[in-house]
Amino acid sequence: MKKTIGMLGMALLSGVLFSCNGGTNTTEPMKTGYTDMEALEAIFSRKSVRQFVADRPVEQEKIELMLRAGMAAPSAMDRRPWEIVVFSDRESMDQLAESLPYAKILTQAPMAIVVCGDREKSEHNWYIDCSAVTQNILLAAEALGLGAVWTGVYPGQERVDLVSAALGLPEHIIPLNVIPIGYPDGEHQPKDKWDESKVHYNKW
Amino acid sequence: MKKTIGMLGMALLSGVLFSCNGGTNTTEPMKTGYTDMEALEAIFSRKSVRQFVADRPVEQEKIELMLRAGMAAPSAMDRRPWEIVVFSDRESMDQLAESLPYAKILTQAPMAIVVCGDREKSEHNWYIDCSAVTQNILLAAEALGLGAVWTGVYPGQERVDLVSAALGLPEHIIPLNVIPIGYPDGEHQPKDKWDESKVHYNKW
Repeated sequence: MKKTIGMLGMALLSGVLFSCNGGTNTTEPMKTGYTDMEALEAIFSRKSVRQFVADRPVEQEKIELMLRAGMAAPSAMDRRPWEIVVFSDRESMDQLAESLPYAKILTQAPMAIVVCGDREKSEHNWYIDCSAVTQNILLAAEALGLGAVWTGVYPGQERVDLVSAALGLPEHIIPLNVIPIGYPDGEHQPKDKWDESKVHYNKW
Repeated sequence: MKKTIGMLGMALLSGVLFSCNGGTNTTEPMKTGYTDMEALEAIFSRKSVRQFVADRPVEQEKIELMLRAGMAAPSAMDRRPWEIVVFSDRESMDQLAESLPYAKILTQAPMAIVVCGDREKSEHNWYIDCSAVTQNILLAAEALGLGAVWTGVYPGQERVDLVSAALGLPEHIIPLNVIPIGYPDGEHQPKDKWDESKVHYNKW
């Protein structure tokens, strides 16, 4: 399993990811070039990674791919209530880590993504939509050879307050999680969570 | 872009998806054979599909892959609060459609998955975990050449009551959504939702 992005992909990244078809709202996704990891492989091999290679930053191209993956999520009534805060350099990460004493892992990670929801746009569904955004980001990270871990913020009020203060979020923007991301240090294996007893056919 | 599962993959499906390494909790994911769609391609090409090829059922092997994909989601404190109800034949689907007058699309789809959460296992996070489960299922469907659409149930109390009654769910099991699934009829294009103004670097 190669984890490198093809040169073609890297070149394409400086342009656009989609080729628009006229003035409509629909697009043709690019078919190849970013990663050769299969979709199901990424889903089954995704795991929580909490150890990162020190001093190895995540390329801006990969950051943008993760953000684009996040915003490709479905959303209730197409309201797209997400906002994303990205911490992408050591200095910013250290400042963030200092503000969030519960999130020590931030001192080790080269970057982090905070997925937030706009509750004015989607009061009852923002946290559901933003969870789908987060899963897309985690899978994109896996496919790009990165490691990441979903550390929950919402609905814990204390954590929401702490992260909101650290990031200076407006009152209607709620942080769902903090996702440290980097190149995995060491081997990390996915858990096998398959449990057939949780499947119910045609009735409970 | 081929959408067929390799013969090797289909053969493997009758066995196990994971090769366990001894008695530990970790596993080695299978690397190939199920689909050749790239992870990022699946993420960017996923779209809501509401028209399905009539009388073309979804193969049991693909159903199980979607369920396995769902249960590969992360969960807060590893509580895995998900339960999944699968409707997989015409007769069961028609009965379900009759019970849920708001979900007319069920009369057209060959199958549906209802992702539920166990609020006793994870009172404050089940709907977040189950949203990640759902996104994995939608991406697996896309990768397997299927179409699907997330129709929300929770947190709308009226819908929760209706679906719970139709499925005979215990009180502590809450339905998050109903996902009709089938082979797409016609062409369906993903929306381009990328919006750079929703990205904030190193501060709000």
